[in-house]
Amino acid sequence: MPSEFDLIARYFTRPTRSSSAVQLGVGDDCALIAPPADESLAISTDMLVEGRHFLPGADPESLGHKSLAVNLSDLAAMGARPLGFSLALALPAADEDWLASFARGLFALADQEHIELIGGDTTRGPLTICITVFGSVPNDHALRRDGALANDDIWVSGSLGDARLGLEVLTRHLKLSADDTAVALQRLHRPIPRVSLGLALRGIASAAIDISDGLTGDLGHILKRSALGATIEADLLPIGSALRSQDQKIQYEFALNGGDDYELCFCAPLSQRDRVIATAQQVGVAVTRIGQTREIPGLRVLDRAGKSLHLRSQSFDHFSTP
Amino acid sequence: MPSEFDLIARYFTRPTRSSSAVQLGVGDDCALIAPPADESLAISTDMLVEGRHFLPGADPESLGHKSLAVNLSDLAAMGARPLGFSLALALPAADEDWLASFARGLFALADQEHIELIGGDTTRGPLTICITVFGSVPNDHALRRDGALANDDIWVSGSLGDARLGLEVLTRHLKLSADDTAVALQRLHRPIPRVSLGLALRGIASAAIDISDGLTGDLGHILKRSALGATIEADLLPIGSALRSQDQKIQYEFALNGGDDYELCFCAPLSQRDRVIATAQQVGVAVTRIGQTREIPGLRVLDRAGKSLHLRSQSFDHFSTP
Repeated sequence: MPSEFDLIARYFTRPTRSSSAVQLGVGDDCALIAPPADESLAISTDMLVEGRHFLPGADPESLGHKSLAVNLSDLAAMGARPLGFSLALALPAADEDWLASFARGLFALADQEHIELIGGDTTRGPLTICITVFGSVPNDHALRRDGALANDDIWVSGSLGDARLGLEVLTRHLKLSADDTAVALQRLHRPIPRVSLGLALRGIASAAIDISDGLTGDLGHILKRSALGATIEADLLPIGSALRSQDQKIQYEFALNGGDDYELCFCAPLSQRDRVIATAQQVGVAVTRIGQTREIPGLRVLDRAGKSLHLRSQSFDHFSTP
Repeated sequence: MPSEFDLIARYFTRPTRSSSAVQLGVGDDCALIAPPADESLAISTDMLVEGRHFLPGADPESLGHKSLAVNLSDLAAMGARPLGFSLALALPAADEDWLASFARGLFALADQEHIELIGGDTTRGPLTICITVFGSVPNDHALRRDGALANDDIWVSGSLGDARLGLEVLTRHLKLSADDTAVALQRLHRPIPRVSLGLALRGIASAAIDISDGLTGDLGHILKRSALGATIEADLLPIGSALRSQDQKIQYEFALNGGDDYELCFCAPLSQRDRVIATAQQVGVAVTRIGQTREIPGLRVLDRAGKSLHLRSQSFDHFSTP
């Protein structure tokens, strides 16, 4: 069996591009990164555990993609430009086929985003992937959660709920058409981090978050940090194309609370409405206005008749759901 | 059962000190850190897995200390000043007693080193702790592994082998005196990262690494990256005080290959010998000169008679040892 150091060298050491902010990559006690002058380093960590964030036996190439994508999504939500990432990986055995596939998915996305693997750790243990991403953002231009004001528009990128639908296909054997199944599983396994949209929203959005746990829960974080409430119109929700085959109750539930969407939810003043639309068109990402922030606390979701929808669950929570 | 967000808020959210380089801490999509002007950010990640890096049922307070200490040790080996860290934690259950003890051990060390918890992730899963640390180091003054030159002195801080002895006490029920047991377990559970020594060695040491996997393996990384060999005199090794009760073969084996020492191994030109000693005295850490680098490849460990010792193992490797 190859040693840990052999494995790391074979799959996770690549020459660092000298043009980047990464001054020293894999292979020393620490990596060295210098953000550009007058910029800060934006940092986020996510840990993915087998049986919790992905099913046992999940395709390693998709897992490599998704592990990095969910972290890049946090940089996108901050308006930060990705620079690099570190990878800590616990594996039950040094399975070379698995490692080769995982690395392929991981580096395909890393190359697409022009970022470096700068270091990490590999160990034996229950399959666990912990990635920390690093990006740069001009001081005071980060898209924080606490900047929304009352009567801001609330926007979401792309569409919602298809990833959750994909999970239902896998875990509860929900039957969909072949086309819808493909769409739902693609959304579940291959989320696209909205990096270019996040960068373009600097100076336009007042607050942003990425939707990982579900729209209502994640928008709730913006509202709490900005000390606001909000009203959302359920009819305006951009329902995923596969999810549209389901009845309306399921559509709302998955779009509002499904989780794993990795879209951006952001707020912007009414005065920026045209700029939001133009900017989104420029970067080629659909955006939909779904409601407005309010001074009155609480999140209300209204149906077509203007009545409050009863929300079944808050959002996905790793400790309170089974 | 409290939700994930409650747990994070209760144990892992503390106000960020405004005097630090940390501009935004826990509670947004990303943390924001800006290193001082003309400095780079040094970054390292370590993942600790139950049953692999610590025994099931390990004292959570010690584990909190050690999880951060082993990461700070990487910053020390780079000559970097610690600024902050992120914590990703997988827990089998939201055990509040465990979390309170773990947080106590973690933050006691964080406070001692004046660093901030800047973010992280908490999830359900097999007990796994992944910490990423951030420090700052002036550009081009980092203690890298690739800077050693032929005929440099090789030094180690503190003493070696007691942590491994502690592991033997726990796993093979080796009997020691009560005093020696206490020393050995303290070294195993409560490593002291050599941060002040690492900072003081900037501009003096030509290369440095921290000893996590064992002296010969870790020194081997310096030699490989610096394209050198080395000779070590076994008689010069600073044997841990508890380990001195064991026979000489065990002493050498644990000091050379024991692992978990978290001492610094560093190289420095002969011309710096007096400065190394004076600097170590200033920061109150013992240092011992154990050998010299050589142009000829390979690491030779010589006994009192000048004969090469047969080294049983290379170093601890998470994939090739059971």
